[in-house]
Amino acid sequence: MKKLDTQSPTFPSELNALLAFETAQNPETERIVADICADVRQRGDTALIEYTNRFDGTAAQSMADLTLAQNDLQAAFHRLPHDIQTALQTAAERVKSYHRRQKTESWSYTDEDGTLLGQQITPLDRVGIYVPGGKAAYPSSVIMNAMPAHVAGVGEIIMVVPTPKGERNDIVLAAAYVAGVHRAFTVGGAQAVAALAYGTESIPQVDKITGPGNAFVAAAKRRVFGVVGIDMVAGPSEILVIADGSTPADWVAMDLFSQAEHDEIAQAILIGTTQQYLDDVQTAMNRLIDTMPRRAIIEASLNSRGAMILAKDLDEACAIANHIAPEHLELSVENPQHWAEKIRHAGAIFMGRYTSESLGDYCAGPNHVLPTSRTARFSSPLGTYDFQKRSSLIQVSATGARKLGQTASLLAHGESLTAHARAAELRFQE
Amino acid sequence: MKKLDTQSPTFPSELNALLAFETAQNPETERIVADICADVRQRGDTALIEYTNRFDGTAAQSMADLTLAQNDLQAAFHRLPHDIQTALQTAAERVKSYHRRQKTESWSYTDEDGTLLGQQITPLDRVGIYVPGGKAAYPSSVIMNAMPAHVAGVGEIIMVVPTPKGERNDIVLAAAYVAGVHRAFTVGGAQAVAALAYGTESIPQVDKITGPGNAFVAAAKRRVFGVVGIDMVAGPSEILVIADGSTPADWVAMDLFSQAEHDEIAQAILIGTTQQYLDDVQTAMNRLIDTMPRRAIIEASLNSRGAMILAKDLDEACAIANHIAPEHLELSVENPQHWAEKIRHAGAIFMGRYTSESLGDYCAGPNHVLPTSRTARFSSPLGTYDFQKRSSLIQVSATGARKLGQTASLLAHGESLTAHARAAELRFQE
Repeated sequence: MKKLDTQSPTFPSELNALLAFETAQNPETERIVADICADVRQRGDTALIEYTNRFDGTAAQSMADLTLAQNDLQAAFHRLPHDIQTALQTAAERVKSYHRRQKTESWSYTDEDGTLLGQQITPLDRVGIYVPGGKAAYPSSVIMNAMPAHVAGVGEIIMVVPTPKGERNDIVLAAAYVAGVHRAFTVGGAQAVAALAYGTESIPQVDKITGPGNAFVAAAKRRVFGVVGIDMVAGPSEILVIADGSTPADWVAMDLFSQAEHDEIAQAILIGTTQQYLDDVQTAMNRLIDTMPRRAIIEASLNSRGAMILAKDLDEACAIANHIAPEHLELSVENPQHWAEKIRHAGAIFMGRYTSESLGDYCAGPNHVLPTSRTARFSSPLGTYDFQKRSSLIQVSATGARKLGQTASLLAHGESLTAHARAAELRFQE
Repeated sequence: MKKLDTQSPTFPSELNALLAFETAQNPETERIVADICADVRQRGDTALIEYTNRFDGTAAQSMADLTLAQNDLQAAFHRLPHDIQTALQTAAERVKSYHRRQKTESWSYTDEDGTLLGQQITPLDRVGIYVPGGKAAYPSSVIMNAMPAHVAGVGEIIMVVPTPKGERNDIVLAAAYVAGVHRAFTVGGAQAVAALAYGTESIPQVDKITGPGNAFVAAAKRRVFGVVGIDMVAGPSEILVIADGSTPADWVAMDLFSQAEHDEIAQAILIGTTQQYLDDVQTAMNRLIDTMPRRAIIEASLNSRGAMILAKDLDEACAIANHIAPEHLELSVENPQHWAEKIRHAGAIFMGRYTSESLGDYCAGPNHVLPTSRTARFSSPLGTYDFQKRSSLIQVSATGARKLGQTASLLAHGESLTAHARAAELRFQE
């Protein structure tokens, strides 16, 4: 891992070099995705089946071969060992409980003129959850994407998940069952995104698509944005750990590993306030790395994008955190709530020695879909609010029409919009 | 205007033809915008000044010529006639009052194991408001974009507004003053968007850019999305009026005109429940059109994209509204709150005969930046919430670490993420 020291005059440029990650869109990927989307939009199921057989090595004859009803998901759940069933249910219940607190309710008020103002909050009608297949098949992602939609009251939650060579993952299907998914299609890639966005004979058009995917899925989501809503397009996952030395070095070492094991381009950064503690964590990592099945990925990630930063105190560490705006921030310090108040930008803040990021990844309750690549400066964790939308409510009284009408008329004439002015004036010149 | 009847067997296809509006992205525009963005990113102020002089016909020597401090905005306000000053202040106050009710507060709770869960809500640090220059210079847009940011507590609100041939619009600058804009730059186009997104020597990088613009501005916003947040990319403005016949035909006619006068591609649709009322509105339009300075625009809009629809009752009218998901919906009916409850998708709902859309455009309180082109199915009016973001808060207790750790460990092993499992296990195997 790189070693940085905030006292070095080159620290700011070293830090920015560490964080730099260019997610340039590949024109060739864009072109392929544009063609696939146009084709699925035009030819529907026929195109979807062709692409699925070609890319996933399946032999589907019709959409019936690629369709799972809710009882198929339920059956997958019942095939699992009892302890996994319980773990999925526990995670789903905790995530549900937390996300219920995010649910927004309609509101309105009446002003002194009797004019009613407010917002009517409604769930989305139908959403699509994209779940990757193959090596990155994460049942926890199914729960984290589907449960907020379920809590919001979305009418129909549709999952798409590719099944390379036709292999279905029972834990993924079971997670969909416990998270309230209504039905699933075993399709993936840009073709699945296009099918959800435009609708086919078998797959109904959805209003929003969420969930992670590869470069083709990300490009397809960008392309259909506007036709449907999408969640953010995620970059590589990151953790920043700020440690005051009070947490066992082994624990912090494992937290850094847990980020790094995702991916060679995942980023794990530790800020400590003493060189001794940074050395202790390095020693722990050297000892523990041998026990890691994903050692090669962890080492690649830590060597290329990991860093240890020596800061002069926790105030400075928090200032660096605000610059990094990390997806995951562990405040592995005494009195973490005090320090959390100084954090302006972070996807999730894990406070205190007992709060490993991995607890949040699976079952603490908050969502694990979080803003990456400094986007926590302006965006938020996936939540129930992402599956609700608002309509403004306005009911102007006769008195209000007179008072507001005069203001509106003046401003409308100022913008040379005569019909706007007249529409207001008619209401008080009866 | 086209005449449609819901009883006709061809009604569904006629309706969809009416609503179809393809907003294909122009590859040539994309290419120009990509070049401008890359150039401003690399050469900063120098490039920005060059593009501004070239596209806006100005002769700026340095950024000082393109910079307005808050006291310049204030001076513009004081140059205005008193009644316009008052109208701007009245509108700003009402918009502020409404948007304060949208402000979200941090929350947390502690579960039975002593684990704290919640969300910390913070304002964005710095935002950029794009304001079009020239013919579409709308002070009301300045208020609607800047005030929610101000109410959210954004640290710095920066406006960009092009001034073709150097002409500054005092009402726009004054609106910025009353809406809490901190400073402004008289630049526009893709170059202004790039400057806000990447920062230059004179313009600091912002965290989010909102506000309407032409095709180049829209393409630039799409391009920088991810580096900064953006609001939605708006399509043509639309109104759907549902009328039960109780509102004077002249009023409804003028409401349709007020939408149509925006733009040749704006869309105005009326649904009535009797042919007589539709005829009355048509007669009123025929009489009133002569009084409209923007008659040519209104006629072009109504002829190409307007429609009158005869529905069999208000239930059917509401079902059509939910299909259209209009930006503006007027329920010009008796007992409008009853019918509003049946509306699932609309940007804003204007209830009752006194509530012309134009009151909402200027000063009723709710925002006039609304989802267009059926995107009300999944998105919401611009609001205070767009200038706040959330960080999840998790502080697991020792008891919680044991119970959650067992669940997390099982699920992590199920995903073959050993470091995730070990990070959880270490916390309860002391």
